[in-house]
Amino acid sequence: MNTRKIISSLGKVLKVEAVLMCLALLVALYYRESSWTAFAIAIGIMLLVGTIADYKKPEDGDIREGEGFVIVSFAWILCSIFGALPFFISGQIPSYIDAYFETVSGFTTTGSSILKDVEALDRGMLLWRSLTHWIGGMGVLVFVLAVLPASEGRSIHIMRAESPGPIVGKIVPKIRTTAAILYAIYIALTLIMVVCLLIGGMPLFDSVANALATAGTGGFAIKNLSIEAYDSAYLEGVFTVFMLLFSINFNVYYLLINGRVARALKSEEMRWFLGIVFVSTFAITINNISAYGTFLHSFRYASFQVSSIISTTGFTTTNFETWPTFSKMILIMLMFFGACAGSTGGGMKTSRIIIMLKSITREIRRLLHPRTVAVIKLEGKPVDNNVIHGTSVYLTAYMAVFLISLLIISLEGFDMVTTSTSVITCLNNIGPGFGLIGPRGNFADFSQLSKLVLSANMLMGRLEIFPIIMIFNPSLWRKR
Amino acid sequence: MNTRKIISSLGKVLKVEAVLMCLALLVALYYRESSWTAFAIAIGIMLLVGTIADYKKPEDGDIREGEGFVIVSFAWILCSIFGALPFFISGQIPSYIDAYFETVSGFTTTGSSILKDVEALDRGMLLWRSLTHWIGGMGVLVFVLAVLPASEGRSIHIMRAESPGPIVGKIVPKIRTTAAILYAIYIALTLIMVVCLLIGGMPLFDSVANALATAGTGGFAIKNLSIEAYDSAYLEGVFTVFMLLFSINFNVYYLLINGRVARALKSEEMRWFLGIVFVSTFAITINNISAYGTFLHSFRYASFQVSSIISTTGFTTTNFETWPTFSKMILIMLMFFGACAGSTGGGMKTSRIIIMLKSITREIRRLLHPRTVAVIKLEGKPVDNNVIHGTSVYLTAYMAVFLISLLIISLEGFDMVTTSTSVITCLNNIGPGFGLIGPRGNFADFSQLSKLVLSANMLMGRLEIFPIIMIFNPSLWRKR
Repeated sequence: MNTRKIISSLGKVLKVEAVLMCLALLVALYYRESSWTAFAIAIGIMLLVGTIADYKKPEDGDIREGEGFVIVSFAWILCSIFGALPFFISGQIPSYIDAYFETVSGFTTTGSSILKDVEALDRGMLLWRSLTHWIGGMGVLVFVLAVLPASEGRSIHIMRAESPGPIVGKIVPKIRTTAAILYAIYIALTLIMVVCLLIGGMPLFDSVANALATAGTGGFAIKNLSIEAYDSAYLEGVFTVFMLLFSINFNVYYLLINGRVARALKSEEMRWFLGIVFVSTFAITINNISAYGTFLHSFRYASFQVSSIISTTGFTTTNFETWPTFSKMILIMLMFFGACAGSTGGGMKTSRIIIMLKSITREIRRLLHPRTVAVIKLEGKPVDNNVIHGTSVYLTAYMAVFLISLLIISLEGFDMVTTSTSVITCLNNIGPGFGLIGPRGNFADFSQLSKLVLSANMLMGRLEIFPIIMIFNPSLWRKR
Repeated sequence: MNTRKIISSLGKVLKVEAVLMCLALLVALYYRESSWTAFAIAIGIMLLVGTIADYKKPEDGDIREGEGFVIVSFAWILCSIFGALPFFISGQIPSYIDAYFETVSGFTTTGSSILKDVEALDRGMLLWRSLTHWIGGMGVLVFVLAVLPASEGRSIHIMRAESPGPIVGKIVPKIRTTAAILYAIYIALTLIMVVCLLIGGMPLFDSVANALATAGTGGFAIKNLSIEAYDSAYLEGVFTVFMLLFSINFNVYYLLINGRVARALKSEEMRWFLGIVFVSTFAITINNISAYGTFLHSFRYASFQVSSIISTTGFTTTNFETWPTFSKMILIMLMFFGACAGSTGGGMKTSRIIIMLKSITREIRRLLHPRTVAVIKLEGKPVDNNVIHGTSVYLTAYMAVFLISLLIISLEGFDMVTTSTSVITCLNNIGPGFGLIGPRGNFADFSQLSKLVLSANMLMGRLEIFPIIMIFNPSLWRKR
């Protein structure tokens, strides 16, 4: 383990975070909020620690497999530990564990909150909260890739641990070019969304904060009623569309930019994803017509909520806690499904669902015709058996983490629905769940232990479990 | 598809069922219950249909893979369809769908009931109910194997579709000998249990009925309060021990009979299984001390319930609905885990859990040391990659069936806990769940559609999903 190199990389990450936090500092200064000092202190601490860590240049050499995982895992943990400082120093979130939970929820683009009254927060704090989503959405390390003088090998390792879901086929071979392209698409989409929101009459601050939270498929709201506060069908439509846009594999946009429209539209994962969105929206719309009066009214709330949950954003425009059980079950299912691989969304990812479903049908074919050789294809290309195996192991690890967390959280003694959906929503990086943590609820009443466990769930969900598990593996730390 | 041979085999199965039903007829006659006529009529119908189906002898030839699945699936479905007749004809269960649900629940050794007042049933009916568990437990087809003039190849196919879980290593090569040995162990254990219950002062009828229901890990009680009705620590202890005995891989008993005690006690699956039982019992005992007063009192209820749930029997001695969330979550987890492969229990099976857990640790090792070749071992033998793959596909299919069923059942509009545990308990062949279907509840209020879906779940759970899915596969029915 090249400890010096890891520490140095993490120092760079902290310095980048400090620079980004300056945006929140500027907002605080603009609105003349006294909490600007909290940002200033936090930035100072981060720059100091970052500089010390990065002071002694490490010897050159590739970052090896295990080290990539360590850097990624610790980057997210450290960013959260330091990112929580402004909330705590300013006293706006008096408990440090709460501030840490909130920041992990931000960087992992979860959007679960411990705040009972979001609107009581200063604007600088609100912007920092939303900005953590935006940073987390694409991954701190994508920025770091542009900063670090990266060799090809090293970056591939980091990217592999970072990129959400099994991406079939890299966009372009050069990793730094890839990072730059994704970065550009991400910024462009965010800006377009800000404009769309402004057109709908949303104030500038709200537009920016909400766009940042949408881009990261995070879901921190700056109003207690979330997006319901704006009560505008147009604005809800903008959110619905952009939440979906940010949960589609960014490969698709790359193909579109390059004029390969036909191939982009053929994306199998996108088609499945949109198919699931369509069917779920339709089913929930029908299921709620009597409650909302008309088909259109029901469609408005159903489409927003389906888009919000499957994209793992977690914004709300209605108290879906009161929906019929059928609709609620669909939402829970969508929580597990999640967005497409290669997007900013969380969950199990559509491509994994497709691979697993195809492996079921292949198994049936095999049982019936033992001598048939059946190949699973995704996006028209055969999927390697290692990928299939990796996918099923991933889902197993997922369920194992889910069950262990469930047991710990159940010690709270909350009802079964609150208990189970709290883990589901954190592990899949959604935001709200059902029961006490429903659209009108929050995580304030959970114990400190539970908040730490749920924070770990958010990190595991965001980093696809294994990097976090691996840093606890002693063999990783053995000297070679 | 050799349709003639399938029909003939199914005819034989029906005739065997008719003979076994005579036991219930005798009980009804002994107690001079007027419902004996219902048994007589049902037996007549089954003999008639069975004889017609088996009349024209099929040409000789092996039963092919697909055909084995068809025979097994239809055997269970037909046995349930005809086994429901006495309940319906006698009017003791006025709705045929209800009677069918109850009988499927019996043959699949689930033990979920639609009866609000079990004690209102005639004794002949109660015995038939318990007997379906006993028959189902070991599998109707194990009996049929002793009846059918089976060729080696044919029986292997049936056995493979029938045997619960991935058994590593066959007991003995000859399939009919295996069947006879399992059969003898099964009968012997049942008889020993009857004696143990009689010693505890339980009436003969109750002892026999309860032993039959325990042997099949079924859980149909003949009292409204289930085993709580007897309120005897000794009797509960007998149940606790025998529920566990019937959920251990029967390989172990075979080894014990042959004097290979050391190897039997080394069974990895059994050790894991008992380990899970021990830890769960301990955790629930501690969690409930304040409610039950003393450690011993709490241990009495915890050990019984853990044993009942993990063995997928489903007897109850306390209303565990009132337990803390932590204990309830453990029970739900145990519902999924289930018993050992090669036992009469249901659920996912301990060996599958072991294989999946080992594949997680292997994946971690692989990620850290990409060039390592890591082999998964079970019972000291390397597990073939096909078995590992099959296991993960099985779990995926399991989750898929679970989710689809959940959506259909959620249309009932029951609360989320009732909805989800109704599917969990049926798919894993347990019996009770939580909410409306808790220890004090039943399935009476479910719609006819839900009862049919849950019946299908019980069958899928019992037959390890694929046989049932496959009979809906058109390619199976194509002429070759």
